[in-house]
Amino acid sequence: MLYLIGLGLSDETDITVKGLSVVKSASRVYLEAYTSILLVDKTILEKYYGREVILADREMVESSSDEILAGVQEVDVAFLVVGDPFGATTHTDLVLRARELGIKISSIPNASIMSAIGAAGLQLYNFGQTVSMVFFTDNWKPASFHDRIRENRTIGLHTLVLLDIKVKEQSPENMMRGRNIFEPPRYMTVGQCARQMLEIEEMKTAEGEGKGGVYTEESLAIGAARVGGKTEKFVSGTLKELCDADEALGDPLHSLVLLGRRTHELESDYVREFAVDKENWDRIWKRYYDGEQ
Amino acid sequence: MLYLIGLGLSDETDITVKGLSVVKSASRVYLEAYTSILLVDKTILEKYYGREVILADREMVESSSDEILAGVQEVDVAFLVVGDPFGATTHTDLVLRARELGIKISSIPNASIMSAIGAAGLQLYNFGQTVSMVFFTDNWKPASFHDRIRENRTIGLHTLVLLDIKVKEQSPENMMRGRNIFEPPRYMTVGQCARQMLEIEEMKTAEGEGKGGVYTEESLAIGAARVGGKTEKFVSGTLKELCDADEALGDPLHSLVLLGRRTHELESDYVREFAVDKENWDRIWKRYYDGEQ
Repeated sequence: MLYLIGLGLSDETDITVKGLSVVKSASRVYLEAYTSILLVDKTILEKYYGREVILADREMVESSSDEILAGVQEVDVAFLVVGDPFGATTHTDLVLRARELGIKISSIPNASIMSAIGAAGLQLYNFGQTVSMVFFTDNWKPASFHDRIRENRTIGLHTLVLLDIKVKEQSPENMMRGRNIFEPPRYMTVGQCARQMLEIEEMKTAEGEGKGGVYTEESLAIGAARVGGKTEKFVSGTLKELCDADEALGDPLHSLVLLGRRTHELESDYVREFAVDKENWDRIWKRYYDGEQ
Repeated sequence: MLYLIGLGLSDETDITVKGLSVVKSASRVYLEAYTSILLVDKTILEKYYGREVILADREMVESSSDEILAGVQEVDVAFLVVGDPFGATTHTDLVLRARELGIKISSIPNASIMSAIGAAGLQLYNFGQTVSMVFFTDNWKPASFHDRIRENRTIGLHTLVLLDIKVKEQSPENMMRGRNIFEPPRYMTVGQCARQMLEIEEMKTAEGEGKGGVYTEESLAIGAARVGGKTEKFVSGTLKELCDADEALGDPLHSLVLLGRRTHELESDYVREFAVDKENWDRIWKRYYDGEQ
C-alpha cells in the first residue's frame, strides 16, 4: 500500500495519530521536500519517528517515481507531504503511476494552508481560486495571477496568494558545469509579494484597454506567517503597508490574502485586530468596503 | 488559554499528536457537535482520551459562550471541532468573545473537507467559492447557491457543495410545547443534493430572463462520501447519474463537487476512474469540456 500522509504545517507533532502509526510501521518513508517545508528539519522528524526519512526531490517524484513505488505491491511505503497530500500541490502523477502498477493507495489528510488560512478570520466560503506568486526576475514576470485575481474580485471574493519557495536550486553556471552545488533556500516574503503585485498592476494599467484596475495600493490584505505554528502571526493593512511588514511578520513561510469586496463586517472586525494602523484600516474599510457586500 | 482543536474528518485517530496532548491535559474538553460529525461516537472519543467530553450544541456556543469560557484566563480549555477549527464553520463569535474577556487563544489546525476534497483528483487551485445546500421543504427552497455556482462557472471553476446535516432538531410541535424531544439526525445525500440542484435550475430556467442555464442534467460532478476515512468513496458522473448514486456512495457524510469548464485533462483522467459509466463520462467530456480550459 502507498500511504500519502499529510504532515500539517508546523512541526513534528502536527502529524495525526493515524499518520504517525503508519510512519512507524512502513517499510520506507519518503518526505516530499520541494513544494513546501515544515518549520523543523528532517533530522528532528527522524528522531521523532525513530527511523530514517528519505528526501524526495522534484526529480525523484516526477521522473523516478518507480523508485519510490518499487515493491509497493507487497510492502507499505509512506510518502510524507507537508500540509495535506492533496493540498496546494497534488501528486496526481505519482498516484496515477501507482494505479497503473496495481498499487493500492490510501491518503491520510491533514491541515493545508488552503483551509488553515481561515485562522486569519476570513470565512473560507468567501475565497475564490487560489493563486501562486513566483519570484520575478528581470525578464520573467509571469502575470497570469493578475487575471485570476480579477476574476475573484469581480465577484467580490478573497484571494489566497501562495508564495514561491526555492529549495535545491542550482545557479545556471553550476547547472551547466554539472556541479552538484545548490543555492541557499529562498522563501518569498509578504513584502516581496505585495511589491510584485503592485508592479504588475502598474504595468497593466499602463498598457491601457482596461487591463489594470484590479486592485490598488489601498486594497486591504492580510500577511500571514507560519500559519498553524506556535509563532503564527498575522499583519493586516493596505498592500502598500504590507510592502514593509516583513519585519513584523518574521521568519518564513509567508502567505498573503487579498480581501474581496464581499468581506463581512464581522470578518473585518476580526482582521482589524492585526492591522498595522487601525485608523487607516477603518478609513479604507469605510471608503471602499463597507456596504459593498 | 482557549485551545481550538481540529479533529480531522473521520475517527478518533485523526487528531494530531499536538492536539491530543492538549486534550489530555486541559481542564475541560468541549466538542462542537452541530455543524459536522465524526464517523465515530462521543463515547469512543471519551474512551480514547480517557476523560469526559462535554457536548456543545449551537445554543451553548452561540448564546452561552461565557459558560465555555468560564475561568479560561487561568486554566486551559479545549474546544474540539470536527475538521479544522476555522474550516467550513468558523467560530468567530466565540473567539471575539474570548478576546473581549482577555483570554488567550491558540488553534491547532487539522484536515478540513475544504482541502481534503482534493483527494477526488481535482486541483484545489481550480475551486471557486464553496456553497452550502440545505434540506428543502415544501415552502422553503433557498436558491442563492445557484447564483454562487453561476459565478464560479462563469470563470470556469469547480464548486464544492457542502450538504446539510440536522442534529438535535425539534419538531415544531415539540418545540412549541417545550418538550426536549429531538428528531433522529438527518444527513443530506449526494442524490438529494443533485435533485435539489436540478429542481432549482429548472425553476430558474422557467422564470426566463437568463436566470437558468447555469448547469444541466449532463453537467459532470463528483459525489464524495466519508472523505478522509478508511471507507472514503467517490462516484463521478452527470448530475442526473448522481441522483441515483446514494447506494454506491453509502453512509454519510456526503459532499458534491460540480466540475468547472477549466477542468484539466489530467483531472478528468483521475476522476473518470470513479465514473458510474465511463463511456458516458468520455462522451460528455468530449462534448462539453475538452478544449474549453
